[in-house]
Amino acid sequence: MDGSVRIGILGTGVVGQTIGGKLTELGHDVKLGSRTATNEKAAKWVAQYGSRASQGTFADAASFGEVVFNCTSGMVSLEALHSAGAANLAGKVLVDVSNPLDFSRGMPPTLSVCNSDSIAEQIQREFPETKVVKTLNTMNAGVMVKPSLVPGDHDVFMSGNDADAKSQVSGLLRSFGWKTIVDLGDISSARGAEMLLPIWLRLMGTFKTATFNFHIARG
Amino acid sequence: MDGSVRIGILGTGVVGQTIGGKLTELGHDVKLGSRTATNEKAAKWVAQYGSRASQGTFADAASFGEVVFNCTSGMVSLEALHSAGAANLAGKVLVDVSNPLDFSRGMPPTLSVCNSDSIAEQIQREFPETKVVKTLNTMNAGVMVKPSLVPGDHDVFMSGNDADAKSQVSGLLRSFGWKTIVDLGDISSARGAEMLLPIWLRLMGTFKTATFNFHIARG
Repeated sequence: MDGSVRIGILGTGVVGQTIGGKLTELGHDVKLGSRTATNEKAAKWVAQYGSRASQGTFADAASFGEVVFNCTSGMVSLEALHSAGAANLAGKVLVDVSNPLDFSRGMPPTLSVCNSDSIAEQIQREFPETKVVKTLNTMNAGVMVKPSLVPGDHDVFMSGNDADAKSQVSGLLRSFGWKTIVDLGDISSARGAEMLLPIWLRLMGTFKTATFNFHIARG
Repeated sequence: MDGSVRIGILGTGVVGQTIGGKLTELGHDVKLGSRTATNEKAAKWVAQYGSRASQGTFADAASFGEVVFNCTSGMVSLEALHSAGAANLAGKVLVDVSNPLDFSRGMPPTLSVCNSDSIAEQIQREFPETKVVKTLNTMNAGVMVKPSLVPGDHDVFMSGNDADAKSQVSGLLRSFGWKTIVDLGDISSARGAEMLLPIWLRLMGTFKTATFNFHIARG
């Protein structure tokens, strides 16, 4: 993925703002989408990142993007994606960064889907014309776009059914600084990546920091 | 945990045989327990490991051990532990190495319990007089007792409610060669460790080897 690409980001939280900001710094044009076209967090983000940054609705962002990032909470991702519109996502790569963390039963959160299914698979089933690639959901937002925040070797995982889509996403990940991209397999392998969240949350509690990451050591 | 300790191992599969064998080599007396006192795999194991090795029923092994390892499949662990007997396990450290992998729905296996509970928590609830420590369930049996099979830094996780029990188990883990033991917290943190299995299985498929392990990179 060489040169400037138009990117739509669904979600105006820390993850969406961080990924979107990094992408503008890399020379891409980015539209941050939310429920409303006048979201205040998105407006502040646009003011911060300048002429390559814009905002709009979920549908505006999906329509704008040649590549779309799902940075909404996994609990509301399907609703946000339906709001974005299947036609606006058809034929495109959707980078799914979400985690289905359910805080309604208290702390620690549980996963609203896991084990025999995943949010990534649900999205792929509901949007069959879209090429879903799960990645970046297993680390803190800062580490996602600046892996060097964590010293030493560590990895980003990737799952998806479409080889070309995974190749495109790998290019973006490398532009963020990722050296080791572990391709877990088809989209059903996203179950494994999403099921890392419970231990990630425990580790954050133990280490008192979110600046760490998984590495697979091997021969 | 200095000097020779009597250890009971529940389960005669690869994990039980490997851990039991290593413990005899470290100078401990080990009884391998199974459903029957005359299990053929256990008999071969005893013949291999010599005078410090013995075999018996689950109850024999639990009664013999000052420390007991649960190396049965998580799907049958509660049944095996009830067969071992609560009285034979009371007041003792139970090292739970099991994973609740359910192959009945085909491949890849799912977890028979996860997300809001774990097999380790189920065991701790059913055997409240026993000090359950979850560990070693996130790697291949060979790596469990010889971490140097995997180059570089990598980690073993530990969960449990009793600090003294975790300290005892840490001593055994260090005698296996483990350098980084990550204490995740109380026994409920075993959910996170057990939920690593789905990605572990995918990684084994991707790497075409089981000789790898998780490492948490951090500053």
